Amino acid sequence: MMLRAKNIWVVGGDPRQAALAALLADDGHSVHTYALERGEGTRCEPSLAGADRADCVVLPLPAAGAEGRLNAPLSAREHRLAQVLDALRPGQLVCAGMAGAELERMAAERELLLRDYFAREELAVLNAIPTAEGAIQIAMEELPITLHDARALVIGFGRLGRALAPRLRALGARVWVSARRYEQRAAAEGMGLGSEGPDRLADWLCSYDLVFNTVPAPVLGVEELAALKEGALVIDLASRPGGVNLEAAAALGVRVIWALSLPGKVAPVTSGRYIKDTVYHIMEELDL
Amino acid sequence: MMLRAKNIWVVGGDPRQAALAALLADDGHSVHTYALERGEGTRCEPSLAGADRADCVVLPLPAAGAEGRLNAPLSAREHRLAQVLDALRPGQLVCAGMAGAELERMAAERELLLRDYFAREELAVLNAIPTAEGAIQIAMEELPITLHDARALVIGFGRLGRALAPRLRALGARVWVSARRYEQRAAAEGMGLGSEGPDRLADWLCSYDLVFNTVPAPVLGVEELAALKEGALVIDLASRPGGVNLEAAAALGVRVIWALSLPGKVAPVTSGRYIKDTVYHIMEELDL
Amino acid sequence: MMLRAKNIWVVGGDPRQAALAALLADDGHSVHTYALERGEGTRCEPSLAGADRADCVVLPLPAAGAEGRLNAPLSAREHRLAQVLDALRPGQLVCAGMAGAELERMAAERELLLRDYFAREELAVLNAIPTAEGAIQIAMEELPITLHDARALVIGFGRLGRALAPRLRALGARVWVSARRYEQRAAAEGMGLGSEGPDRLADWLCSYDLVFNTVPAPVLGVEELAALKEGALVIDLASRPGGVNLEAAAALGVRVIWALSLPGKVAPVTSGRYIKDTVYHIMEELDL
Amino acid sequence: MMLRAKNIWVVGGDPRQAALAALLADDGHSVHTYALERGEGTRCEPSLAGADRADCVVLPLPAAGAEGRLNAPLSAREHRLAQVLDALRPGQLVCAGMAGAELERMAAERELLLRDYFAREELAVLNAIPTAEGAIQIAMEELPITLHDARALVIGFGRLGRALAPRLRALGARVWVSARRYEQRAAAEGMGLGSEGPDRLADWLCSYDLVFNTVPAPVLGVEELAALKEGALVIDLASRPGGVNLEAAAALGVRVIWALSLPGKVAPVTSGRYIKDTVYHIMEELDL
Repeated sequence: MMLRAKNIWVVGGDPRQAALAALLADDGHSVHTYALERGEGTRCEPSLAGADRADCVVLPLPAAGAEGRLNAPLSAREHRLAQVLDALRPGQLVCAGMAGAELERMAAERELLLRDYFAREELAVLNAIPTAEGAIQIAMEELPITLHDARALVIGFGRLGRALAPRLRALGARVWVSARRYEQRAAAEGMGLGSEGPDRLADWLCSYDLVFNTVPAPVLGVEELAALKEGALVIDLASRPGGVNLEAAAALGVRVIWALSLPGKVAPVTSGRYIKDTVYHIMEELDL
Repeated sequence: MMLRAKNIWVVGGDPRQAALAALLADDGHSVHTYALERGEGTRCEPSLAGADRADCVVLPLPAAGAEGRLNAPLSAREHRLAQVLDALRPGQLVCAGMAGAELERMAAERELLLRDYFAREELAVLNAIPTAEGAIQIAMEELPITLHDARALVIGFGRLGRALAPRLRALGARVWVSARRYEQRAAAEGMGLGSEGPDRLADWLCSYDLVFNTVPAPVLGVEELAALKEGALVIDLASRPGGVNLEAAAALGVRVIWALSLPGKVAPVTSGRYIKDTVYHIMEELDL
Repeated sequence: MMLRAKNIWVVGGDPRQAALAALLADDGHSVHTYALERGEGTRCEPSLAGADRADCVVLPLPAAGAEGRLNAPLSAREHRLAQVLDALRPGQLVCAGMAGAELERMAAERELLLRDYFAREELAVLNAIPTAEGAIQIAMEELPITLHDARALVIGFGRLGRALAPRLRALGARVWVSARRYEQRAAAEGMGLGSEGPDRLADWLCSYDLVFNTVPAPVLGVEELAALKEGALVIDLASRPGGVNLEAAAALGVRVIWALSLPGKVAPVTSGRYIKDTVYHIMEELDL
Repeated sequence: MMLRAKNIWVVGGDPRQAALAALLADDGHSVHTYALERGEGTRCEPSLAGADRADCVVLPLPAAGAEGRLNAPLSAREHRLAQVLDALRPGQLVCAGMAGAELERMAAERELLLRDYFAREELAVLNAIPTAEGAIQIAMEELPITLHDARALVIGFGRLGRALAPRLRALGARVWVSARRYEQRAAAEGMGLGSEGPDRLADWLCSYDLVFNTVPAPVLGVEELAALKEGALVIDLASRPGGVNLEAAAALGVRVIWALSLPGKVAPVTSGRYIKDTVYHIMEELDL
């Protein structure tokens, strides 16, 4: 990193933000934290005094908690998001994850330069790595067979499917990809994976020990769930509303694990590093 | 493939089209060839009589040769493209590779349903596979060291870079990727590859034994070529105008191989299969 | 498998033996179980009557429990190993895991044809697969970083090291191997892994996030443990006496997980399949 | 490398020895060459005067040419092996490749400390890497299909099979291993490769596009060759007498390439580095 040392405030958040603060300090920046009292290795400021002199203020992912509060699960007390923003000066850079319309409005009112790091493509690509590892960990924990030689289906071949499927294969699983678009199936074939269109999914679901869904659309309904092999495990990695009919699964006795927000759960320190890299990119693009 | 048996004419082309015709016949279609007399295993029709009854007529890649002729290097004689099209009926499906404006105009005049298979994303993705293999073959042939433990740089991380870099790494090379966009570098990192932005390329070129360029823009100029390690090999895979200043390379004594159109050269049968799959997709989308 | 259908008794054991019995039945053999009442999907015989007509009797891994008992954790009651053997006929094939001197003596007295499947090289090679997966699962569970981009050391490059190190690398870890013999280091290099001799291990231990030991000898003593990076995780996969000085680790605050017998714990069904394959090999070699 | 700077003579040989000399000089040793006049970058001594002061004299691989001569294809003239040895002093270390009984006798007469580097296991393991790459290069050059998606059989799963099969698979080939011993098949399975015993090889040979033999025994006779698919390519990597009945292959029209001594041919510089590492090991073990 070629950045000059900066003054950076990390305000609120979970272990990812605590890790972010530590990594920024390791890079030589002057780092202040607030509302992170219970984070590992952080010494928090008693107030936001001085935060208006920061080159960059980093808010958590997501930035907002319930009812206008800052998302600050590691803080000893509650903080209003509006109060945090009031402590800043017009024109100041604020990086937030999943900013949302309300935060955007509040930032605009105060003429803050708000950037959403979670909306950036590079973070989405990087987050697929811990998500894939978390999915593999769950499969290892839940199955009485090895991933080696297991038959696995990955539904969807976007960023997450492309991170997950080759890792499963590298561990010895026999991996197929179900994807709608021809070029996605071509990409899967290029990685040495089998592929199929989603049209007759129910016809060939019976051969899998393990099914990962990455598509946030109703792909595994009654018909598909009923077609699964006995003892098969379904891991749904799709964000809300998910891709599995959970009621049908319960009725049919199909084991489904809906795993959300894996990066922060399985690898908070790595997730903090990805946020750091992304914040750097934002500052570089602003010539900060 | 769920397609019903079709009547398909394969007209003109190189060993890829000869392979295509054989593979279509293997799939149970009624296949006729024309202007492919010297192709392996093909028995050509003496004329285009009956071609107007075909469900699909496949022209080569590229479809046109010089001066309005059909591209037909395996034919015993020359054929005018216009004459080929005159033998067809209005509304008939014609699949051609790199059709070009002139062929499009001629097809429109005759009310033919022209589709360019080379313009389809899935063929571009698949063609990256033989291109990557061909690039690896050239590197193996030219270098007095193994790819194992060689230091290799891949410039660009589009379809070809994503096919090539993991293959090099799987063979034991130490691979870095140079890419402009952050998300491309994130994708490279996710595959376990090192990555860098292209800004100070000349500063770190000295450490590579092998440089592959995939970007059709002037990326390796005098400064970059002068920075290369002695004995380093440059393989330019970019389509015209290429990415290497060949005059500068010659003056500096840098070994550069500009490798174009590898799929048809290194793997004509596989390339024919990819064309077949893509033609099937076109027919499926037209409900043929 | 070309074996004719056999009469096989599976006597005692844990979920691996229950899986073994089910898999043998799937292959078309006539299977009887005993002392496996709580095993999933097994219907046990009330006594060993008829066991003397079996082509093969399979005892668990290990075969013996405490004080002369059969190892039968899934049985409703206790069984004496001697009584089990008394139910068999001279010359009958008995396959047992980790038979041990006492069982060998008892089998010899009864003129049974005892074979130790756990002593066979192919089972040891196969068992390295679930052991490696289990080790990866533990690392994923324990570390706040991804294995991707983590720096990992694998001490020893025998069967287990050769299963574990490439898997770690395939997941994106930066993997080094420490091995004494030059040819082991050459084998590691051939797989694209870094390698070092064990001589100055303490000098370079500081760079690892994760250390796996596979050598059943004291390799990580006070000096080495003190050299580890703060927060590093040590996973000891070596059978007794292990390779880590646990007292020193506790005193130094180094986190060590001593993971024994992973195959049966993380993948009992796969382990049962491996035992099945190995028992088949024994029968093949005896022309049964 | 912790070795102190040495005085090393490299005498005779092919481009591997020329590379060896250059690499030794790069490591800071005082290097003299003789009988390598046409080697790239070598300035040869006019005579062997002073060679008796060397810490180590390295002879080529193989050391002996025809009729008692030094193997020196890059020399301007011929040299008798006996004369070379006469220039050395009793007790001096001489490292030679494939020394052979005659050289051993001559060295013993002169009380030289002869070590055969080619007999060392680590060099054999390392040489499997360029052999595997060379085999892949040949397959790429000869086949009209990509290795990606090709069906490949590797006969034998020793050092070479273990280097070759995973590389083929990493390139996307569908790879099976034929090996006699159960533990070799278990090792293949552990790497995610299919495996079979060699018993009914002829029954399933028909499905392969590509067959690599690594076993120096008659494995591909008339029956097996006749079973091959039309157009299949056989690459025999076994040292003399090879594993393919070449007369039968010619009669049957099966294409066979018998590829010997690939490391020196496809990667002389890498081969020179492997010899260097092995010579270092010999010196280390002698505490030189």
